[in-house]
Amino acid sequence: MTSPAELLGQSSLSGVRVLEVGTSVAAPFGAQILGDLGADVVKIERLDVGDDTRKWTPPAWDGVSIPFLHVNRNKRSVVVDYKTDAGRAVMEELIAGADVLIQNLRPGAFARAGFSAERLRELNPRLVYVEMTGFGRTGPRAAQPAYDPLLQAYSGIVSMTGEDGGTPARVPVSVLDMGTGLWLVIAVYEALRRRDVTGVGTHVETSLLQTALMWMSGALMGVAAGHAAPRRLGSGFPGVVPYGAYPTSDGHVFLSAGNQATWLRLLEAIDSQDLDSREGFGSNPDRAANRETVNAALGERTSRFSTAELVARLEAAHVPHSPVQTVDQVLADEQVAALGQIQPLPHAQIPDLRVVNMPVTFDGDYPQMRLAPPELGEHTTEVLAELGHDAASIASLLDAGVIQTPTALEEEQTA
Amino acid sequence: MTSPAELLGQSSLSGVRVLEVGTSVAAPFGAQILGDLGADVVKIERLDVGDDTRKWTPPAWDGVSIPFLHVNRNKRSVVVDYKTDAGRAVMEELIAGADVLIQNLRPGAFARAGFSAERLRELNPRLVYVEMTGFGRTGPRAAQPAYDPLLQAYSGIVSMTGEDGGTPARVPVSVLDMGTGLWLVIAVYEALRRRDVTGVGTHVETSLLQTALMWMSGALMGVAAGHAAPRRLGSGFPGVVPYGAYPTSDGHVFLSAGNQATWLRLLEAIDSQDLDSREGFGSNPDRAANRETVNAALGERTSRFSTAELVARLEAAHVPHSPVQTVDQVLADEQVAALGQIQPLPHAQIPDLRVVNMPVTFDGDYPQMRLAPPELGEHTTEVLAELGHDAASIASLLDAGVIQTPTALEEEQTA
Repeated sequence: MTSPAELLGQSSLSGVRVLEVGTSVAAPFGAQILGDLGADVVKIERLDVGDDTRKWTPPAWDGVSIPFLHVNRNKRSVVVDYKTDAGRAVMEELIAGADVLIQNLRPGAFARAGFSAERLRELNPRLVYVEMTGFGRTGPRAAQPAYDPLLQAYSGIVSMTGEDGGTPARVPVSVLDMGTGLWLVIAVYEALRRRDVTGVGTHVETSLLQTALMWMSGALMGVAAGHAAPRRLGSGFPGVVPYGAYPTSDGHVFLSAGNQATWLRLLEAIDSQDLDSREGFGSNPDRAANRETVNAALGERTSRFSTAELVARLEAAHVPHSPVQTVDQVLADEQVAALGQIQPLPHAQIPDLRVVNMPVTFDGDYPQMRLAPPELGEHTTEVLAELGHDAASIASLLDAGVIQTPTALEEEQTA
Repeated sequence: MTSPAELLGQSSLSGVRVLEVGTSVAAPFGAQILGDLGADVVKIERLDVGDDTRKWTPPAWDGVSIPFLHVNRNKRSVVVDYKTDAGRAVMEELIAGADVLIQNLRPGAFARAGFSAERLRELNPRLVYVEMTGFGRTGPRAAQPAYDPLLQAYSGIVSMTGEDGGTPARVPVSVLDMGTGLWLVIAVYEALRRRDVTGVGTHVETSLLQTALMWMSGALMGVAAGHAAPRRLGSGFPGVVPYGAYPTSDGHVFLSAGNQATWLRLLEAIDSQDLDSREGFGSNPDRAANRETVNAALGERTSRFSTAELVARLEAAHVPHSPVQTVDQVLADEQVAALGQIQPLPHAQIPDLRVVNMPVTFDGDYPQMRLAPPELGEHTTEVLAELGHDAASIASLLDAGVIQTPTALEEEQTA
């Protein structure tokens, strides 16, 4: 038994075994969070290639795909071809000993391989089965595969993103993939709590489209209430002007003036009190009606300053603001450094690997970084040994090409 | 005792009491999720005005703020002025009986009101205390208030959003506010599991900036590996052309051609095989190098079709695609309807109120909608009675202006 003190030093998920039959971003990200929180996550990968993201280069870090690296730490990699009889038997052993199984294969593919929800329940009534799809569990498009930006477009997010009068843009972070990963973690915790009481697992279903509708809940309710569909406003906000990113001599600064006092302090801060008396500039409703004219005039004034100078003036004047930082500036930022969230993680191929820990501390501590993102099949032998396979059994499965290890993969490549 | 079957019909959080000392979006959204999952969420609101979002109109639905409505269902509202001695005593009673307290006031404000983390621990050692800020728990900016779009700018998200060569845009959904709400729910479940073993609560801290760094983990790792900071690409994707939203005669369609076979099927689908032989169009690396020219030529061709016609042609040709739907189209979409996630919720003032349930089903069922977003102070009397206050005590607190109910608020307004 783990003592309470030891447990607090680790996480409540120590001892919880999670199988990830996942690829790309959503399922791997959700499983990574469970791994960060102490679960033993075993990632089941395909023969020869593994997770699709292993090939998503550029960008790479010392030759390893960054799309793979950022969602696959704190887990072990096992390569098994569960479409063969011997591989299916190994998979069934893994399922029998697991607490959670997360999969985001093409809709129906896992069931066709012999692992329907009903079959999983037979193999392990305590299993929490998380099934993630693009378009959701039912409906005319349920069988269609999909990915993050397509569903940003389908769900209305793209229609709202980009410049006023310009073409639609996409959100450049994986709000649907990573967002669905967050929801599935919540669902796993909930299902584990239910199991504590009932003794049986739950079939959890989630999808990119459902996650998108949740992000869009305010916008959807607005239209349901009879308002017009939201339009693109660049960095702006309906009904408040000034609001958004304004140019400087060397970049942009985001600022807002939500009331008249802030508007006047802003004008004083940038030596532009004259703007207040211009026709259509004097009140927020007027400014909102003359959005383009006001923003152009204000941008002409803000562009007289460097970003650093404008930030200093807005800070002194208590006008809400932020520099529009580029990613290299964020990485060098002192506030970001102070938070300690970007952390080194020892990796055989990448001496300087750094990763972003989860945005949560528990009594001041982030979860522990335990395992580097694995090589394809790095833990095949180890995990099979834990299942009780002896050396002869493992060698036989390797020879049959049912399982793979990094050594076997290298030999194959040089053969 | 609740039976297992009853519990499954409800949620594992039945009987868990959550205090929300929150405002705006992040803490209320996180608390709403816990309420959806069955927790008894008591929202503590300020005298007279309550949560800031109650005044965020437009947009409104039958007079009620939609920014308030979309993150405050499944909770009860209590108005208590905990800066008075009598109000602080009520708050201490609430804390003594709570499992979780979530707050996102200005940094330090709750401690200054007499509720530091240490004091909370004294009042209730089992309490899970979730503290949410803008810039995080430490560092030179820790004391600064902040909100979603400012931290989108600070964290690099805005720098990556918007048209190639255009001005930076913001992400029009609350990825930091709602995202932080998701992380705090994960943290609450984790802390409750820890408490099951240790008997004591955890101090959880999270922030908008930390959530932003998590969304940006791939981009940050790319720059840390030595790559250039990502630039704005509109709806595009680095290294793949065509990819993104292309114009039609009546809108836009999002499409992508990740390999040469798809590119050729796309051209055939839009009667444009001639484009393949143009200089710089023949391979993906060439097209990526000539992004603007290729996208312009392709856009000229796609704009010859209506959205419906183009979607039908791409579907037949197996080219990944989606119409860029506007929010009114999403609300009327048959796939969205089939998922059943947008649900009616009876509300005294809004006969047609519909809300978006969480993007997760458990054995096929969404969580239950139990309570409409409350009126300010709607449950003040009920909750104080549960704490053991008799009618005389409640009347005395009302007379002293320490607590408020809707009736008291109406009388005040008409006085």
